[in-house]
Amino acid sequence: MVRSVGIVGLGLIGGSLARRLVQREVEVVAWNHTERPYAAAREDGITCVDSLEDLAIARPEVLFLCNPLKAMPEMLQRLAPMLDREATTLSDVGSVKGMVRQQVEAAGLGDCYVGAHPMAGTEFSGFAASDPAIYDDALWAVTVDENTDYQRFLKVATLITGVIGNRVIVLDDTTHDRAAAMISHAPHVVSTAFINELSESQDRNIAAALAAGSWRDMTRVALTDPARTRAMIEEDADNVEALLRDLAARLTLFADDLHAHDDAALTQFFEAGQPFRDYKAHERELQNSEESSVINRPGDSQGSNDFNEPGGQNDAERKVVAIPETDWQRTFLDSARRGEHVVRFIQPWQVEVETRSKV
Amino acid sequence: MVRSVGIVGLGLIGGSLARRLVQREVEVVAWNHTERPYAAAREDGITCVDSLEDLAIARPEVLFLCNPLKAMPEMLQRLAPMLDREATTLSDVGSVKGMVRQQVEAAGLGDCYVGAHPMAGTEFSGFAASDPAIYDDALWAVTVDENTDYQRFLKVATLITGVIGNRVIVLDDTTHDRAAAMISHAPHVVSTAFINELSESQDRNIAAALAAGSWRDMTRVALTDPARTRAMIEEDADNVEALLRDLAARLTLFADDLHAHDDAALTQFFEAGQPFRDYKAHERELQNSEESSVINRPGDSQGSNDFNEPGGQNDAERKVVAIPETDWQRTFLDSARRGEHVVRFIQPWQVEVETRSKV
Repeated sequence: MVRSVGIVGLGLIGGSLARRLVQREVEVVAWNHTERPYAAAREDGITCVDSLEDLAIARPEVLFLCNPLKAMPEMLQRLAPMLDREATTLSDVGSVKGMVRQQVEAAGLGDCYVGAHPMAGTEFSGFAASDPAIYDDALWAVTVDENTDYQRFLKVATLITGVIGNRVIVLDDTTHDRAAAMISHAPHVVSTAFINELSESQDRNIAAALAAGSWRDMTRVALTDPARTRAMIEEDADNVEALLRDLAARLTLFADDLHAHDDAALTQFFEAGQPFRDYKAHERELQNSEESSVINRPGDSQGSNDFNEPGGQNDAERKVVAIPETDWQRTFLDSARRGEHVVRFIQPWQVEVETRSKV
Repeated sequence: MVRSVGIVGLGLIGGSLARRLVQREVEVVAWNHTERPYAAAREDGITCVDSLEDLAIARPEVLFLCNPLKAMPEMLQRLAPMLDREATTLSDVGSVKGMVRQQVEAAGLGDCYVGAHPMAGTEFSGFAASDPAIYDDALWAVTVDENTDYQRFLKVATLITGVIGNRVIVLDDTTHDRAAAMISHAPHVVSTAFINELSESQDRNIAAALAAGSWRDMTRVALTDPARTRAMIEEDADNVEALLRDLAARLTLFADDLHAHDDAALTQFFEAGQPFRDYKAHERELQNSEESSVINRPGDSQGSNDFNEPGGQNDAERKVVAIPETDWQRTFLDSARRGEHVVRFIQPWQVEVETRSKV
């Protein structure tokens, strides 16, 4: 089990992670590009060091890069000559995975890398806003490729399921980044296209005057910092491009069907998303039932035991999946596609998964 | 000044309007397709009649059709032989205006019709959910064409600005319905296209697991009753079709620019909507300043005086617009395009307009 973790970047995500790990009795060594949060971090039991070199020398078992994506190449270049690759597995918490892996490989660190992306955050930033609770019941995407070392993968994955007490899905970079294009990056482009459409219309003030809830929701993300949105989209450019072409084709087809009064096609359009509507309805039911009964989450009281006995409250929704030594990546991916989240490593080649709701 | 109003349909919109008018000492006669809300409506001072014929016979000065859009042709066909067209001006509160005017004309009632669409409502429906306060500070679109009789227009518009105490923009049907396509109907299609995209993806459970706030906002309206959404879109089909083709072209162009790493084009894309971002920022400022000081709204204390003296608290944002007798429709439309809302008829050919914020 992992006893020491290094953190680069004590912002909201890195700071909250560091504090969560300290709570779970992991030794945390952190470096930040300024010393500003060090006093507060030290009070929380985090060992803060003066340089990135000191962090590498501390030889943490897992080192999470929690710096902004734009600083990633520089961090990797500086770490490369200093990192003890035998002792330390490199990971990160970036929101795109393909680009980061390319940068990791460009720095010659591909062999010791396992990617990660926690679904955690708030609207705020910085260590002062950090809160270990943002990791309560969080889901992480752990990203691997065909060369990923299984022992290093296990280190990162069991740290997340065991020590941190979170859920994991294991993906290749493309699957992760394609999903991110669908659920975040493309919506940002579409939202921006709508405010452009309005801004360029001679009737913009009329449209703005008539706008209500559907417009407000559709355009909310277009109001956030456009420079940051652009950077996010360019980091996932190929997937965003493919998805936008697909969406444009869907909208054009719908326009054609509307023009032709094609009843069957219009019916199909309004029925195709029913699986997602049902999923959301089921999610709401689960939330309502959770509000009236506390569910015993895995890991929350099992922080010191990575490989533990099966059991728990939600047996009906859980099952055990055997992981083959050959093409284990595919077995994990198929499981994630079925809507299963890894909640526990029973043994190195056997996991318990939970399905809460699926599309 | 209008002393009597007829209401067809005591649902949320019609019921709230009837109650607002009674509060302002207008005589309100209403008919609903069932008598279910009559007891409550009578307690509120609304005269409820047994048949649509009785409502026509009451000869209200303005008759608002507040029934669902799908019942519109039947209501119009039944009203046509009974309505005293000299005495009564016909209006409605439908969310699309071109289709309603066509139906009004098909029933031979075009001469006495002035369209209206109040920006008011809640997530609920039915008389039990009605509340005159949904009209507090509301904006109405009043829709006219080249044949609209100015005296009938004045009746409806001054009822709204004077008695009801609301703001008005005066539009042609196409401008109204094109704006509605942009701010509501097309967002519903796009939102639905996104949940279809996800539902049809082999990675749908992975995408759903990674989804956060931007996805939730982008897809919220796709979760509402798809049959109702479809009906709404088909009622405004031509405008929705045109807008979707335009959006599809924007998304394809963006995909091309992303593919080509066209820095100037990408910059332009993320800057084009800045006027709308600025508008929203200004709106928020106004809301914040309103919270700390009560603004004296026109009409609120002037219900019995349609043509009253200029004045009020917000002189800086107000001005007087003269309405020419020839092509008065265009003068009103240009004013609406400038972001002006009519708050008062000083004289029949002179209005006071207010500009709160503009794109």
